[in-house]
Amino acid sequence: MGKIYIVGIGPGDMANMTYRAAKAIEAADIVVGYGAYIELIRDYFPEKEFASSGMTREVQRCRLALEKARSGLKTALVSSGDSGIYGMAGIMLQVLNESGSQIPVEIIPGVTAASAAASLLGAPLMHDFAVISLSDLLTPWELICKRIRLALQGDFVLCLYNPRSKKRSGYIGIARDIAMEYRRPETPVGIVRNAGRKNEGCEIASLEGMLNFDIDMFSTVIIGNSATYVENGRMITPRGYVL
Amino acid sequence: MGKIYIVGIGPGDMANMTYRAAKAIEAADIVVGYGAYIELIRDYFPEKEFASSGMTREVQRCRLALEKARSGLKTALVSSGDSGIYGMAGIMLQVLNESGSQIPVEIIPGVTAASAAASLLGAPLMHDFAVISLSDLLTPWELICKRIRLALQGDFVLCLYNPRSKKRSGYIGIARDIAMEYRRPETPVGIVRNAGRKNEGCEIASLEGMLNFDIDMFSTVIIGNSATYVENGRMITPRGYVL
Repeated sequence: MGKIYIVGIGPGDMANMTYRAAKAIEAADIVVGYGAYIELIRDYFPEKEFASSGMTREVQRCRLALEKARSGLKTALVSSGDSGIYGMAGIMLQVLNESGSQIPVEIIPGVTAASAAASLLGAPLMHDFAVISLSDLLTPWELICKRIRLALQGDFVLCLYNPRSKKRSGYIGIARDIAMEYRRPETPVGIVRNAGRKNEGCEIASLEGMLNFDIDMFSTVIIGNSATYVENGRMITPRGYVL
Repeated sequence: MGKIYIVGIGPGDMANMTYRAAKAIEAADIVVGYGAYIELIRDYFPEKEFASSGMTREVQRCRLALEKARSGLKTALVSSGDSGIYGMAGIMLQVLNESGSQIPVEIIPGVTAASAAASLLGAPLMHDFAVISLSDLLTPWELICKRIRLALQGDFVLCLYNPRSKKRSGYIGIARDIAMEYRRPETPVGIVRNAGRKNEGCEIASLEGMLNFDIDMFSTVIIGNSATYVENGRMITPRGYVL
């Protein structure tokens, strides 16, 4: 009988993948995913059959995974990071519900971009934080701005996913301008590109100067709260322990 | 030369640990951690030397790790979940900075409780979310309440860590009462206990009825946003794809 594993592969390298994620991919007859993510893992599973599709073809990818599972194949649907955080888990469950299929599903979590980025920067997520995607493909930009404002008012650390793409190159600048209304200009901002992948990059900027750094669609941006500081090259949001 | 690995072991079972976390523990001469977390992993590393300490002894644990590393040992300091999310990374870096030591440090991320819990519930974290700890050991309760309110106003999914302990048994009830001001009484709430551990438990309640379920200090509570629903026993926060 077929089965669908919805697998979070983590940042992209084998080291940061869980045993369970790797075992599910090994157990699968076919692995379905966005082309760029398939490329991250193809070499680790040289015997495996892969089926990839384009970036905005999420629904089609889930339908393909369902079709393969219905034909009796063990099918792994992969997301980078955690499949449950802006990943494929939601849309796959929606496609499954729509179909009325009783195919078994197992959701396998992974290391999300916030965790991978934070580990390279130091310890910026030691206190309450808000995760916000700047992609307005599926969310009105006004709602995104509202959330940024409220998170800043609450002195949350902000973790921004999808901070920039070709079509919305200015959004990260607007987010930074809003942040300047609530945080000191010297508030530390961590910018991590391609965490756990080739060309990994990691910089600590100030809120004021953050736009001088390369920020692209493969970046994660972490804006500190009012207590976040930098020492010895590492970004730290103290939790309040007395040394 | 000594070294400190700050390791997120994930929920607690080997399956959900990353290769990198396991390798760091294997490479370590000694593993330092809170007793209950050490117990989770002791059997996976039968040859290893462990040093544990009590729950509120975080600073002492970091000083012990530093002392071991300074004596030339490779030392793994372990946290459950992700070491960078309410974990040991921050306080370890602070202790290190205070000491002026140049001991090398490597921070190894893991699967955080939000991800582990979400994977058992369905797909509740498909959209922007706020992570808030209800522990007031180091944070004023008024600030915690303010953050809950602002996150609700922003229609964030709420992910509550440390929802209850003996000393603050009523806080989760207050959080729920605040949520009732902003969300429908039937808003889905996921309650996950001991994700990835013995006695794992997972329930989907309504906001109105959530206090009828067991919530303890090993639980993670996820309160849906205005669009979150339950279908076929799974909690889904839709991202907005058109099927």
